[in-house]
Amino acid sequence: DILSAVENFFKKKADFQGKRILITAGPTREAIDPVRYLTNRSSGRMGYALADAAVARGADVALVSGPVSLEKPEGVEFYPVQSAAEMYDRVMDLKDKADVIIMCAAVADYTPIVCAEHKMKKQDALVIEFEKTRDILAEVGKTKHAFLAGFAAETQNLEGYARDKLSRKNLDMIIANDVSGTETGFDSEYNAVSIYTRDGKAVHFTRDTKRNLADSILTEIAKISG
Amino acid sequence: DILSAVENFFKKKADFQGKRILITAGPTREAIDPVRYLTNRSSGRMGYALADAAVARGADVALVSGPVSLEKPEGVEFYPVQSAAEMYDRVMDLKDKADVIIMCAAVADYTPIVCAEHKMKKQDALVIEFEKTRDILAEVGKTKHAFLAGFAAETQNLEGYARDKLSRKNLDMIIANDVSGTETGFDSEYNAVSIYTRDGKAVHFTRDTKRNLADSILTEIAKISG
Repeated sequence: DILSAVENFFKKKADFQGKRILITAGPTREAIDPVRYLTNRSSGRMGYALADAAVARGADVALVSGPVSLEKPEGVEFYPVQSAAEMYDRVMDLKDKADVIIMCAAVADYTPIVCAEHKMKKQDALVIEFEKTRDILAEVGKTKHAFLAGFAAETQNLEGYARDKLSRKNLDMIIANDVSGTETGFDSEYNAVSIYTRDGKAVHFTRDTKRNLADSILTEIAKISG
Repeated sequence: DILSAVENFFKKKADFQGKRILITAGPTREAIDPVRYLTNRSSGRMGYALADAAVARGADVALVSGPVSLEKPEGVEFYPVQSAAEMYDRVMDLKDKADVIIMCAAVADYTPIVCAEHKMKKQDALVIEFEKTRDILAEVGKTKHAFLAGFAAETQNLEGYARDKLSRKNLDMIIANDVSGTETGFDSEYNAVSIYTRDGKAVHFTRDTKRNLADSILTEIAKISG
């Protein structure tokens, strides 16, 4: 009836009232010299859509964002960062205040061991050695007080890699998307995701705007995290 | 007097009428796998400002652009590319039709020898071998029919590197800018440039908008290329 529809409308609107949500978004940049860097194709759109949806549903949102070409969402605490190391530090500062943490950023797994002070001149060949960055998601998983959701962007064996990451990194939920196509994922307003949880369940959302998927993801989080 | 001022205004407006200008802009992306790539901090702003100024002064402009987050300038033939190899091919297609070529793009000097077909999984260490890309500027310099201007973005020894590049690559002009500061150069609407030519002369333009500097650069080109 009308009354319960109205009630549901307002209930939905405020279902994250009083919750603090920490969201990471975008790529990171790992400098090789003052001019060149290694990065990835993350646009930040999925993380920004989650931040926007969470604010609309009443949450206090802290958004830690790598360099992207998007407008900062209204109403968030905004923490811009460049490198994986900067993102690590910022997340460690903020994680203990959060009720829900959604790690959507595509953080570099590797960073050059040496960053040249001046722009390198051309040589005949070039070999760059990389070391692993600190694993932010695993680190948060180890000392966890909040509901923790991670993302897995893959080009093959999506469910296998996602479930393995869910378990290894002590997550409560993993949101997996296939980035091999051009119709969804990177550089697109659209996405399609599968959500896996610790109870072994899976929920699949077919192609939709990232903003609509953000609401679907938050609804799944609300079901589990209460 | 007023008459000559009016004449100069219209003369200036049309001083590239009937000229075909080829401009390259932006960075390139060199893929390491379907997700990760090597790139650089070029925003494309200087090249886009040059394209806009050249159209305003009557030129037919072909703009070959790497991936940037700028609006395409009005009135140009637009050729978007991703990698250094794609930019090479596109410039080779277009160079013989141009009267003036301004190579403003920050083309990758190196590209990974192997691009993985699927997203790489984490290993303990990572070594990536790079090979030189083909040198577009030097190649155009070798078989030159047009007035050829290049850019040099450096963090030290600006004039030395710029004059060396001017001579080695058979350019008619090199436009040098210091990218070590934050007030000009990459990620800025502003720049400051020094222009060196084959006759040994130098002209310096202090900090100004990239759009104003674009007009100054075109005026210097017009003086020499007639």
